[in-house]
Amino acid sequence: MTAPAPTDPVLAEVFSYLEQHGSKFVDDLCQLLRIPSVSADSQFASDVRQAAGWLVEHLQAFEGEGLEVELIETPGHPLVYAESPPVPGAPVALVYGHYDVQPPDPLDEWTSPPFEPTERDGNLYARGATDDKGQMLTHVKSVEAWLATVGKLPLQVKLLIEGEEEVGSENLEAFIANNTVKLACDCVVVSDTAQFAPGIPAITYGLRGIAYYEIHLTGPNSDLHSGVFGGAVTNPANTLHKMLAAITDDEGRIQLPGFYDDVAELTDREREQFRELPFDEQAFQDQLDVKGLTGEAGYSTLERRWARPSFDVNGIWGGYQGEGAKTVLPGRANAKFSFRLVPNQDPKKITASLRAFLEPLVPPGITMELIDYHGAPGIAMSLESPYIEAAADAIETGFGSRPVFMREGGSIPIVNTFAEQLNADVLLLGWGQNDDNLHAPNEKFCLADFHRGIRASAALWRQLARRKAEGGRREN
Amino acid sequence: MTAPAPTDPVLAEVFSYLEQHGSKFVDDLCQLLRIPSVSADSQFASDVRQAAGWLVEHLQAFEGEGLEVELIETPGHPLVYAESPPVPGAPVALVYGHYDVQPPDPLDEWTSPPFEPTERDGNLYARGATDDKGQMLTHVKSVEAWLATVGKLPLQVKLLIEGEEEVGSENLEAFIANNTVKLACDCVVVSDTAQFAPGIPAITYGLRGIAYYEIHLTGPNSDLHSGVFGGAVTNPANTLHKMLAAITDDEGRIQLPGFYDDVAELTDREREQFRELPFDEQAFQDQLDVKGLTGEAGYSTLERRWARPSFDVNGIWGGYQGEGAKTVLPGRANAKFSFRLVPNQDPKKITASLRAFLEPLVPPGITMELIDYHGAPGIAMSLESPYIEAAADAIETGFGSRPVFMREGGSIPIVNTFAEQLNADVLLLGWGQNDDNLHAPNEKFCLADFHRGIRASAALWRQLARRKAEGGRREN
Repeated sequence: MTAPAPTDPVLAEVFSYLEQHGSKFVDDLCQLLRIPSVSADSQFASDVRQAAGWLVEHLQAFEGEGLEVELIETPGHPLVYAESPPVPGAPVALVYGHYDVQPPDPLDEWTSPPFEPTERDGNLYARGATDDKGQMLTHVKSVEAWLATVGKLPLQVKLLIEGEEEVGSENLEAFIANNTVKLACDCVVVSDTAQFAPGIPAITYGLRGIAYYEIHLTGPNSDLHSGVFGGAVTNPANTLHKMLAAITDDEGRIQLPGFYDDVAELTDREREQFRELPFDEQAFQDQLDVKGLTGEAGYSTLERRWARPSFDVNGIWGGYQGEGAKTVLPGRANAKFSFRLVPNQDPKKITASLRAFLEPLVPPGITMELIDYHGAPGIAMSLESPYIEAAADAIETGFGSRPVFMREGGSIPIVNTFAEQLNADVLLLGWGQNDDNLHAPNEKFCLADFHRGIRASAALWRQLARRKAEGGRREN
Repeated sequence: MTAPAPTDPVLAEVFSYLEQHGSKFVDDLCQLLRIPSVSADSQFASDVRQAAGWLVEHLQAFEGEGLEVELIETPGHPLVYAESPPVPGAPVALVYGHYDVQPPDPLDEWTSPPFEPTERDGNLYARGATDDKGQMLTHVKSVEAWLATVGKLPLQVKLLIEGEEEVGSENLEAFIANNTVKLACDCVVVSDTAQFAPGIPAITYGLRGIAYYEIHLTGPNSDLHSGVFGGAVTNPANTLHKMLAAITDDEGRIQLPGFYDDVAELTDREREQFRELPFDEQAFQDQLDVKGLTGEAGYSTLERRWARPSFDVNGIWGGYQGEGAKTVLPGRANAKFSFRLVPNQDPKKITASLRAFLEPLVPPGITMELIDYHGAPGIAMSLESPYIEAAADAIETGFGSRPVFMREGGSIPIVNTFAEQLNADVLLLGWGQNDDNLHAPNEKFCLADFHRGIRASAALWRQLARRKAEGGRREN
């Protein structure tokens, strides 16, 4: 799967630069991967800063071509920011990525050390290879190629690379809210997800949201003997089961009043596209070792995972959990649970509905504490967006295949922030694979995908520049 | 509440010995309480054996007075057995107790460490203080007092003290079945329950049974990302809540088919006796810090606790239980739960009904493992037994008040075995209090009750000796 050389002579020149510098780009990526920029662990604080410094220095090589580069301090790890000069009439693209990585534990499960990038079978193994140093660097390298050959980009590109994605992006959230003029753009480009499958590149145009809770039910002031008290004293563990069971009916439909009112239904076009994806349900079951799947009636497995709300108990604890039989009536019972939300559902409304639903279910003798952890709405970009079309063309040029359009069941809270604060389309152009082991030992990135991603990114600037800037770009 | 000195000169002499040795008896109890004889946890196996050894050594001090002492090995923890010489014409009393204790968890809720007996406000705090080391020792000490003063007991007393009461008494069950001649007796005396209230000693004539289970629900082969998989992969924690919630209706009535078919209903006399007991429902709630009680409609709180079946979840665990929000779809969810049974209900029938009830509720993608831990039927003794009358007189002598007749919600499976295998009346003479925290942190035993219990036990030998041996004593 190699894309043919572009017929566009400007892009051909850029691609020729990419061809010549391919192995240098891998060396650059290895340099960055050797820096253990683990944001969650304060022991690595100076490494995280070193990774930011490496990026700044790398980008500063093109200050002569008008690229302005900044290291922006935050209360936490710094942001790396760069922008090319404005191009009147062309849209503005903001690239978002991150240079921090997950902790590498458990270390003994790595075949080669996490911070010594090692090539095996066409893959580069290292912590951060796919998440997100490798994917993020594709855009840095495409910018470099344009500047080194054409001398300028065909549209204004803004690069915003943070060091706290793996710990919640709190400081970036604040920075975006306070810098909507600086960051104003027509579309945001994020490469931090996966292709649909090997050979099937994808544009992810939708994400589910989340509403996450913890419930504590308190009954008697200590664990009681279930023989002496059972049957007369309300048992918080019995109550927990009644309450959580009441949240769904026997088909898994969520029973909170109004829960489905705002749910954006899938369009016929979307359902058809999902149906056409080569998803092997038996292989999916085999991989998970389960003998069957369940979910909301009337929807396929991909629809359930990507575009329908769901309810999952994430953890439970209370009473005696040790060996053998202990006859206690527990004083407390606890659970963590969450709803996955789809576009138009408002986590705040869900919380209010949940509270109103659960409160009448609390029986005499039990006190409920409900903790609202965090919420994010689901999001779906319009498939009619000219920028999505531009991205599809660019991917076809870079990868040699037209991408499929998919959604993801997880949440990327920062994507909501970009969409809401910058009023911009967000293009999730994932170059990774589903078995890249992100957040796990032996994280990897396919080197062919690295080079295809750089080509697709280089083509993206060309394709986006052909689309007119939208009137709606936020300037205040 | 101190009983007047007995007018009976023999008993007066015994009581005088008790008076002189009271503080020595407490020291002895503390020695035994310091041994962490937790039978449920194999880490404590040598401590359990040490407790048995302590008892044997303690009893061997009276071998000169004809007490024969044995350590009897079993496939599990050993039995301690002692018997005094036969007394023709007098009945034979078998004292049953246990030297093993419940696990002490949760450790951080103990004010003083569970295996460092500590006196506060007239109570001795330690794991096993009331259940059953303290109560069991009252009979050892009354035997000691008779032998040390009179030189012999007025009837034959057999002491049978086991180390597996908290894990189901399996080996003792087998021992009794194989040794009905050795253990032949007219009545069995057990002090492992509570008085009705402070100042109101009681004879417990009925116990609930139990059927205890552990359930493991297994879904996917590891914890999954609840965003990527939620809604399509069956969540074992969601399933657990559905299954356990289905066991009762909204009024707490157990839904297993046939569950209530064999339930022995309370007689009008029993219900009237219960109603006359000075039970303060508000004080009961206040003591537990609960704002209300719930239970089966149509029954009082005492009836629910003592004579109606119940369902309690005893422990739950699965998924993420740490700090904060982790979006996992857990691979497993687990619970321990139990039913309390009343006379005529058969635990084997309950297990069959439970299995038949749960199996159809297991959804595709989930595997259920149901472990049947142990079961025992409920029991109720006849209030007309002459030995119950003797016990009431002895308690009046020891405590200074006539006992009330009550039932208990807990189970002592071995009591069923004694009644069935030895054809003997079982006298449940509880010296504890309801707030003794048995099976919970800060277990305690009132030291005044310890001393009253010893006196009542000493008087019991005298009172029982005055009743003729029953013709029905089993000799085969």
